[in-house]
Amino acid sequence: MKKTSTRLADGRELIYYDTRDDAVHDAVDRRPLDPMSSVSEIRHDVLLGDSVAIASHRQARTYHPPADECPLCPTRDGHLTEIPDDHYEVAVFENRFPSLSGEHGRCEVVVFTDHHDTSFAGLSPERARLVLDAWTDRTRELSRLPGVEQVYCFENRGEEIGVTLGHPHGQIYGYPFATPRTELMLRSLERHSEATGGRNLFDDVVEREREDGSRIVLEGEHWTAFVPYAAHWPYEVHLYPRRRVPDLLGLDEEARAEFPAVYLELLRRFDRIFDEGGTPPGFAGGTPTGPEAGGEPPTPYISGWHQAPFSSPLRREFALHLELFTIRRTKGKLKFLAGSESGMSVFINDVPPEAAAARLREVATP
Amino acid sequence: MKKTSTRLADGRELIYYDTRDDAVHDAVDRRPLDPMSSVSEIRHDVLLGDSVAIASHRQARTYHPPADECPLCPTRDGHLTEIPDDHYEVAVFENRFPSLSGEHGRCEVVVFTDHHDTSFAGLSPERARLVLDAWTDRTRELSRLPGVEQVYCFENRGEEIGVTLGHPHGQIYGYPFATPRTELMLRSLERHSEATGGRNLFDDVVEREREDGSRIVLEGEHWTAFVPYAAHWPYEVHLYPRRRVPDLLGLDEEARAEFPAVYLELLRRFDRIFDEGGTPPGFAGGTPTGPEAGGEPPTPYISGWHQAPFSSPLRREFALHLELFTIRRTKGKLKFLAGSESGMSVFINDVPPEAAAARLREVATP
Repeated sequence: MKKTSTRLADGRELIYYDTRDDAVHDAVDRRPLDPMSSVSEIRHDVLLGDSVAIASHRQARTYHPPADECPLCPTRDGHLTEIPDDHYEVAVFENRFPSLSGEHGRCEVVVFTDHHDTSFAGLSPERARLVLDAWTDRTRELSRLPGVEQVYCFENRGEEIGVTLGHPHGQIYGYPFATPRTELMLRSLERHSEATGGRNLFDDVVEREREDGSRIVLEGEHWTAFVPYAAHWPYEVHLYPRRRVPDLLGLDEEARAEFPAVYLELLRRFDRIFDEGGTPPGFAGGTPTGPEAGGEPPTPYISGWHQAPFSSPLRREFALHLELFTIRRTKGKLKFLAGSESGMSVFINDVPPEAAAARLREVATP
Repeated sequence: MKKTSTRLADGRELIYYDTRDDAVHDAVDRRPLDPMSSVSEIRHDVLLGDSVAIASHRQARTYHPPADECPLCPTRDGHLTEIPDDHYEVAVFENRFPSLSGEHGRCEVVVFTDHHDTSFAGLSPERARLVLDAWTDRTRELSRLPGVEQVYCFENRGEEIGVTLGHPHGQIYGYPFATPRTELMLRSLERHSEATGGRNLFDDVVEREREDGSRIVLEGEHWTAFVPYAAHWPYEVHLYPRRRVPDLLGLDEEARAEFPAVYLELLRRFDRIFDEGGTPPGFAGGTPTGPEAGGEPPTPYISGWHQAPFSSPLRREFALHLELFTIRRTKGKLKFLAGSESGMSVFINDVPPEAAAARLREVATP
């Protein structure tokens, strides 16, 4: 993997990741951009105990631009984008409208391909591996920033989930604190260890799922994917490396090498969950068969890596894993976070986890 | 207030609440309903420490019926609904598709009026008072059920939030446990008391807001409404009675009498937040001016009462309050709970709380 780091016109960092060591990226950003003036602020909620990022400048951010104005496409034919070169494999840059910035963390955009009309599931295994290596590198680099305590590499896919740019991309948040969700896991981890004379809760959860089998979605040699026993979302999969590591930096070469096959298969199954036969939803031969074509849009999903906070005393006990879920509960119907979920943090799930796992096994690639 | 309790054809309870003591409701449910067979299940998530309600039978629930098939309208002209009488003021019944039931709690539907084409903001003060009294009565009644630890009276309004029935109604969840959100508040309450030699955190929060003033939305003689300092949502208002009480049962007559004016004004302001002059959004003279009329649909919102769990040792320290918020962040744009919120429980808010409060003061009823 080759890294080429450069700066955009407003001073933001842009890094190209390439598989070939002789790749050259020397194009210059020619846009007349004002310097970034970030005004994000972190406020602590004394009743809930969490922190909220207040980021008012984001209201002006790019919202569903037409495809020929996509800011993530390569710069070509006079169309100046966030990526000055006319081709690239994977590109990462600081978000111009960050929720977190400066001493309050960092927000980056990860562009998975210079092809506009595809999705992560449509990437080659080689490209998926390059993305994994880029995520790993960003975790390492952000760990060195004083304002970053935890790195979250994630992808939101689909308009139903609020995605405003169709070009395949993800994001990386470097949070200035351990997130509330991770704090809950760390607390459970500690209690379980105390209650069991030192057993690791993550290990026990994965072992229970492998023994039970009813919620297993797929198993590789180095990865296990299952629907959790108390899944919060209609279709939710947790993917763990067989050998527990605290974050992406800990993955060995065997796990890295197998990851693309496992993850691409999971994403492709997600796109088939709501397929009733006939034309599959999503992208067929690079052509969207979604709403524009009159069909069901591809499955919306959120996918993200849960990694150990850098300064947690339980860091070595934490288990890197990926959580992938969709907000669609059945064809044409979404799961909304309404009164119970948003008001009281109690999830109602209409799809039994065993049924979700059975469906995700049923739609395996033949 | 008069209560008339009866049973629907499948055995579910239906209660009419009337202002007049001579109201009579003796109509019988003539629908051929199968007995309810609830299969909801509560599962504990060992990593997050919360509980999820798995309720697969709900997938079949009523979804956006045409107005002439509304199940919440009164039974008239041979159209048989959930409410057998041909008129009513407020009606409460057990949900036919409950997320929680039996030893796992209870779900009820509260219908605010027998008029289909209006909203809570369109109710008279007398009717709003009757709803408050019905919520209070339900809290008392549900507190007597062995499977109920905490009662949550709430309303989801708007299709953008997943509401599938347009008829003005809310819901009541009797949870079999203290909810995670309330547990967080109780923990903060306890810590604050320890750290300050016995001060009450809720009292201190409300006092700080009243002294600061910048986030105050309105003050009555017995109620204070403000945008919280670390608001999670674009427009979010917390409404506290001036005299702290643990739940609705504790409200005195003065607070009850003033509630309709305060709450109806808050809801009307919510409907004006995104109004840019000209035709106001929402309901004008009983006629929807929303999407059917080509305008902006009325502001979607979630509104819910936070009440003390019945068996909490900190019950007497808890402060009943209402939390009202919208998921719309600007005209035509929604706030989605995507990767950061749903994946890591970290909220990003694009509207500074002081700006939200200023807007909510600006759109006060003249």
